[in-house]
Amino acid sequence: MGHYRLVLEYDGAAFEGWQIQAGASRTVQGCLVEAAQKISQGEVKVRGSGRTDSGVHAEGQVVALEIDWSEEPLALLRALNGNLPRDVAVRSASATSPDFDPRRHAEGKQYRYAIWNGPARAPLRENRWTHIAQPLDLDAMGEAARGLLGIHDFACFQASGSDVLQTVREIFSLEITGESGAEIVVEVEGSGFLRHMVRNIAGTLIEVGRGKREPASMADLIASLDRGQAGPTAPAKGLTLVRVDYPATSPQRSESGGCETPSG
Amino acid sequence: MGHYRLVLEYDGAAFEGWQIQAGASRTVQGCLVEAAQKISQGEVKVRGSGRTDSGVHAEGQVVALEIDWSEEPLALLRALNGNLPRDVAVRSASATSPDFDPRRHAEGKQYRYAIWNGPARAPLRENRWTHIAQPLDLDAMGEAARGLLGIHDFACFQASGSDVLQTVREIFSLEITGESGAEIVVEVEGSGFLRHMVRNIAGTLIEVGRGKREPASMADLIASLDRGQAGPTAPAKGLTLVRVDYPATSPQRSESGGCETPSG
Repeated sequence: MGHYRLVLEYDGAAFEGWQIQAGASRTVQGCLVEAAQKISQGEVKVRGSGRTDSGVHAEGQVVALEIDWSEEPLALLRALNGNLPRDVAVRSASATSPDFDPRRHAEGKQYRYAIWNGPARAPLRENRWTHIAQPLDLDAMGEAARGLLGIHDFACFQASGSDVLQTVREIFSLEITGESGAEIVVEVEGSGFLRHMVRNIAGTLIEVGRGKREPASMADLIASLDRGQAGPTAPAKGLTLVRVDYPATSPQRSESGGCETPSG
Repeated sequence: MGHYRLVLEYDGAAFEGWQIQAGASRTVQGCLVEAAQKISQGEVKVRGSGRTDSGVHAEGQVVALEIDWSEEPLALLRALNGNLPRDVAVRSASATSPDFDPRRHAEGKQYRYAIWNGPARAPLRENRWTHIAQPLDLDAMGEAARGLLGIHDFACFQASGSDVLQTVREIFSLEITGESGAEIVVEVEGSGFLRHMVRNIAGTLIEVGRGKREPASMADLIASLDRGQAGPTAPAKGLTLVRVDYPATSPQRSESGGCETPSG
């Protein structure tokens, strides 16, 4: 068996999330397993760095693939892409160790949340931007964002009903760029994220931008540990998993021993 | 009757082009007429600056709308957007003269053709970028582009079967930006464009970028007046009508007397 590390890009709109699960008709993991089975004999095994929810996109989901394959990683990439549907593709493939665990070995992730803040709907941004018509106060949002940096118990941002007990995470950076009334992008990097955490942070920052919540109130919100105190979960379609980082490697896009597509 | 100038944005994927025509089930013009009829009594009249083909997108299609409407243009914009499907919206609306003819009065148009030049498919660029896997030579494409500037008889780029007799047009600028192996954008501004002209130019420049055609051969190609000498028509999904310009007005986005959404 060969062991490969893949970086996947997908448009989440028509997927019921990453993970194969009973009753879900179309998942990214399921499509990848299917494509891998078409190009090899025997069993295949696919593990991701983490789940993405239904509707969430990825530019850099990292996957461990176990497959009976004897050719170069570039040939694997091409064979998989030839068998995957249009809304998912392998961006890079490289040989890896059998021990590589994309979930446990991840030391950081980056997500982007995209907000279209124009007064009118923008059809060309319909699929990957959340439309907020009311002009948002970027300074207030930036101040609130700074209040979320660092190591905290982020239970207040965890999806209600989650059963994760350890809710301490570190947010390394949380940047808000763009222009009120136009495109606004929230980029967050952290050690890991609870279920719905980025979308709940986005929903909370949008309330700050609307003046419905004080930018200085983030410390109290975190201290509450209460999901009911945070803002609503922002829509899935605005969220993209940008990158997953691993120790002692350069970013996936430039690692050696594999093949890759440039970022863009 | 009120007379309004609208700027429309649309995702062309699910439209059979701009223009209402026998047998076409879903057109942008048809959707706009339908939305306008829902919000007003009596007849409505919709004229565009020109047709866009099936699958072609627009950020700045300019439209003259005749409608029985007594409120502000901003209320018109909101009412129309509330009745238009998700893949088309009005970006700005302003009162105009009954004489305004968006096709005849246009003195220039800008189009963008988007090429994803990475070796692997990019699902997040699937809908609005044409994928060319072979790395393109941007210098060669740039040299060819310069050979197309100016006033010429562009019959060689006109869709075969077109019945337009006057095929002289002026290309004001033709810029190729981006990076070989990544995103490449062709932006062209001209006095007007023949049917399929921008896509045929893009298809020809792609052949130059692939080394299948000499960059210095554009003058001979133009002189041939022969559609058979030019490259293939590049796919519709890579093309966006960016802007239409009119004399003695600032760009539509910043005109007074109306309401607008910022560019982004």
